[in-house]
Amino acid sequence: MKPLRTFEDMLELFRAKATSKRVVIISPNDEHTEFVVKRCADEELINLTLVFDGGESDELKQFCRNSKNGKITTLSCADTAAAAAMGVKIVHDGEADVLMKGSLSTDVLLHAVIDKEGGNGLIEKGKTMSHIAVTESKVYDKLLMVSDVAVIPNPTLEQYDSMIRYDCDVCRSLGISSPKIALIHFSEKSNPRFPICQIYDELKQRAAANAYGDMSLDGPMDVKSACDKESAQIKHISSPVTGNADVVIMPDLEAGNTFYKTISFFGKARMAGLVTGTCAPVVVASRADSAESKFFSLILACIAANK
Amino acid sequence: MKPLRTFEDMLELFRAKATSKRVVIISPNDEHTEFVVKRCADEELINLTLVFDGGESDELKQFCRNSKNGKITTLSCADTAAAAAMGVKIVHDGEADVLMKGSLSTDVLLHAVIDKEGGNGLIEKGKTMSHIAVTESKVYDKLLMVSDVAVIPNPTLEQYDSMIRYDCDVCRSLGISSPKIALIHFSEKSNPRFPICQIYDELKQRAAANAYGDMSLDGPMDVKSACDKESAQIKHISSPVTGNADVVIMPDLEAGNTFYKTISFFGKARMAGLVTGTCAPVVVASRADSAESKFFSLILACIAANK
Repeated sequence: MKPLRTFEDMLELFRAKATSKRVVIISPNDEHTEFVVKRCADEELINLTLVFDGGESDELKQFCRNSKNGKITTLSCADTAAAAAMGVKIVHDGEADVLMKGSLSTDVLLHAVIDKEGGNGLIEKGKTMSHIAVTESKVYDKLLMVSDVAVIPNPTLEQYDSMIRYDCDVCRSLGISSPKIALIHFSEKSNPRFPICQIYDELKQRAAANAYGDMSLDGPMDVKSACDKESAQIKHISSPVTGNADVVIMPDLEAGNTFYKTISFFGKARMAGLVTGTCAPVVVASRADSAESKFFSLILACIAANK
Repeated sequence: MKPLRTFEDMLELFRAKATSKRVVIISPNDEHTEFVVKRCADEELINLTLVFDGGESDELKQFCRNSKNGKITTLSCADTAAAAAMGVKIVHDGEADVLMKGSLSTDVLLHAVIDKEGGNGLIEKGKTMSHIAVTESKVYDKLLMVSDVAVIPNPTLEQYDSMIRYDCDVCRSLGISSPKIALIHFSEKSNPRFPICQIYDELKQRAAANAYGDMSLDGPMDVKSACDKESAQIKHISSPVTGNADVVIMPDLEAGNTFYKTISFFGKARMAGLVTGTCAPVVVASRADSAESKFFSLILACIAANK
């Protein structure tokens, strides 16, 4: 299969898979989330459940009432915390495949997702929660994934191991049978002075021992060596990954967040993303993301959801 | 003065200052450096000294012989190490204002620049060596500076202090009388769990106490809040710096290098840069940089040179 080039390609793939997905959206009270609801209502394969917290607009309530029978289910809660808990419980009970955050704060949502006390959260014991962003840039000839731009400040070896597994899963759900993953560092030299280089060496040994299945893992290398063949050639480095990465793994959250903000603002790239390590994908787009970005994040999550 | 928008504006500023600069280039043996030599030969205000190491082309030697009387001085050494030492000594002795690396490796050049044994190096006692990059992007309405994308892996408080002073100096040489400097972090929340936030707080206290003269220092904030007014507004943060930074200071070299590679490759930005903290600016462009980028780095260094 040819690698996906655009978010529209991703939407076509979702439609072609022809598998219905049940999506829960908590607190759809803002314009962006309303846009997502209306866009999803046009998708045959998406069944929506909206958890209201009292802040929803009359227009949205009207829209839901007019939607085709059974297409949109609505539930009502007294406040955002209750809405978050109810939305999470639906996913926890296996009644939905994807969870999406509306206008409530990420803290309130994640509190319900983790749910240390109640036992209704979405994190399986021992699992690492991480984030995968997908970028669509005009200067790169396929979608590019990146971990982690949002959740883990300084990943440990085992957290990196989990991130690679999640990236491979998402790549394969997008049709990339043998993902090419680049381990990012500011230099191509593996220097034991920097702990990240030792972690990368260990990860490469695991990849060589087939821990992650059919894939290529290479690094350390910088972002340009990972994505620009010419730069890699000038530096005389070459592997299946150089200049052709499907995924870039960031050395820390400072670099990850900087990559995300720089490629979106200065590179005018379109962005989507999802939280992984939970029993179902969770879409936690940030306030500054566009409505379109939120819709494509949801499509990505629907593709990545296994159920 | 209106902020500079392009590298051509920077060149115009250099010409308008009408101050001659003496430039030493070590080992001009590659095509890019030959381009720089020829471009500089057209600039009235630049007096060139080329330090040959035996690897220079016959064509370049011919070009130098044909240049106007006194415009290009050539010196010959037996090898790159000797050429590096000679070039550095000329600057050390005050006979040149700017040093530029040709085709020799950065390690060999920096060995001569540091020159621990010989005492002819360019680093004054107690001074921090750092790097400033300047980016020209179509989506930002002025040149944007960034520290440090090349030299210091994890800056200490005092190294950050030095970086801010160097950034202010370069900004002022470019006509920015009151530089706006953003301290980059993945969040706008100052969290004592992350040592960088404590460093940023201390730097802001120093700025408030007028340690850096007329300027604005703000952070922590992410790259988008620093450069995109709309993002800052959505996050309800506002200061003279948000959406309008002249300089972004990176939390570590991983983030700095990632910013540099991402804005240049995905953002198609043009890049220039120089090493600061030395007694004269040093241009150490990397192999993957374009010839044009190397020329504008040299112009930047000529403007930044005080002598």
